[in-house]
Amino acid sequence: MPTYFYVQRNAKFNTTNIAIPFQVARLNIGGAFDLSSGIFTAPRTGTYFFSFIGLPEFLTSSTVSQMLIDLFWNGNEVGRGVSEEANTLGGQNEQLSIQSTLRLNAGDKIWVQIISMTAGMFLYDSAGSHHNHFSGWLLEEELSLS
Amino acid sequence: MPTYFYVQRNAKFNTTNIAIPFQVARLNIGGAFDLSSGIFTAPRTGTYFFSFIGLPEFLTSSTVSQMLIDLFWNGNEVGRGVSEEANTLGGQNEQLSIQSTLRLNAGDKIWVQIISMTAGMFLYDSAGSHHNHFSGWLLEEELSLS
Amino acid sequence: MPTYFYVQRNAKFNTTNIAIPFQVARLNIGGAFDLSSGIFTAPRTGTYFFSFIGLPEFLTSSTVSQMLIDLFWNGNEVGRGVSEEANTLGGQNEQLSIQSTLRLNAGDKIWVQIISMTAGMFLYDSAGSHHNHFSGWLLEEELSLS
Repeated sequence: MPTYFYVQRNAKFNTTNIAIPFQVARLNIGGAFDLSSGIFTAPRTGTYFFSFIGLPEFLTSSTVSQMLIDLFWNGNEVGRGVSEEANTLGGQNEQLSIQSTLRLNAGDKIWVQIISMTAGMFLYDSAGSHHNHFSGWLLEEELSLS
Repeated sequence: MPTYFYVQRNAKFNTTNIAIPFQVARLNIGGAFDLSSGIFTAPRTGTYFFSFIGLPEFLTSSTVSQMLIDLFWNGNEVGRGVSEEANTLGGQNEQLSIQSTLRLNAGDKIWVQIISMTAGMFLYDSAGSHHNHFSGWLLEEELSLS
Repeated sequence: MPTYFYVQRNAKFNTTNIAIPFQVARLNIGGAFDLSSGIFTAPRTGTYFFSFIGLPEFLTSSTVSQMLIDLFWNGNEVGRGVSEEANTLGGQNEQLSIQSTLRLNAGDKIWVQIISMTAGMFLYDSAGSHHNHFSGWLLEEELSLS
């Protein structure tokens, strides 16, 4: 059974330490991505690819501001995307990205989460033009003969 | 029939609101990407992946400068990549990226386009070292029994 | 034979003009990636995808600082990722990325390498949270009947 998702957001988001939810499924073949919780549940054991691009927005600051977003696998951090700037002006955005190839067991859960950010920052997005992108696929199912 | 492309540019580019053309095809298996127009035409109905990384160049400016590049699907915007900086110096570059997984019909067209940019900016590139990257593949053909 | 790797680093790195080595293999199906040398050797002739995200760290500087990382194929540059900032503060990081789809012959070698950087810069990483990501797969083997 093929598994492919590509989801987007319609509005800004700034809650830390929960899975980032999405509103638009451009594609959700196999139905493994749950938009409202932001959680992907692996339907089969196998090798998967995940790609996240986010767009943090900064405030005016002369010091270093940052947003850190991690890809999570059953509650464990897999890898981090970082957006960090100094001498920022209000409304300035900078993309961050994470890409991971993982061997998941059926039932494993994957999501992205804001780990920390400078106060006042948020992921920018709008219903007209989508700026946050999360894709995932089953690359190859692992077949067992047992 | 397999479909894979990976194209690059040889020189800078700064025209808005047309498909970004490319000069170098590292790979164009299936011949679905047209370099001079910058347009990919889906040879089959199925699920495709597209990845674009661009390198906008900034001018000296104390205010916020930006370049926005959208992935287009038959003339509709799918998603946006953003490069935005304040307090820039001339010759400073910052990458932007877009990645999308889409279910296309045979004949559908995909391209990337500069939507808007601060006056004087451009996509930097050179014939020696390639800084703009556009890849796409057919992940899985959709077979119909009708 | 399936071929997939996803490797990460445990610590910072600042050596130019050698392949970037890695310490952690989240995945190395087929065993084609050698962590200590940082070199991937194609086990079969076919079409491959490579994705690298790195996290350069900047020093305090009012002028433009940069790190350039190239994807290499048997010693030839395929494409470049760029991280460049002006008016930086110490400890500020900015991601760069490269993605390439290539048709390799069996035995071809692929790696990423710092081409040049402003003195004092480095790729930031830590054993706790991984900030540098390198993935690759065999998308499709090329079968010959000869």
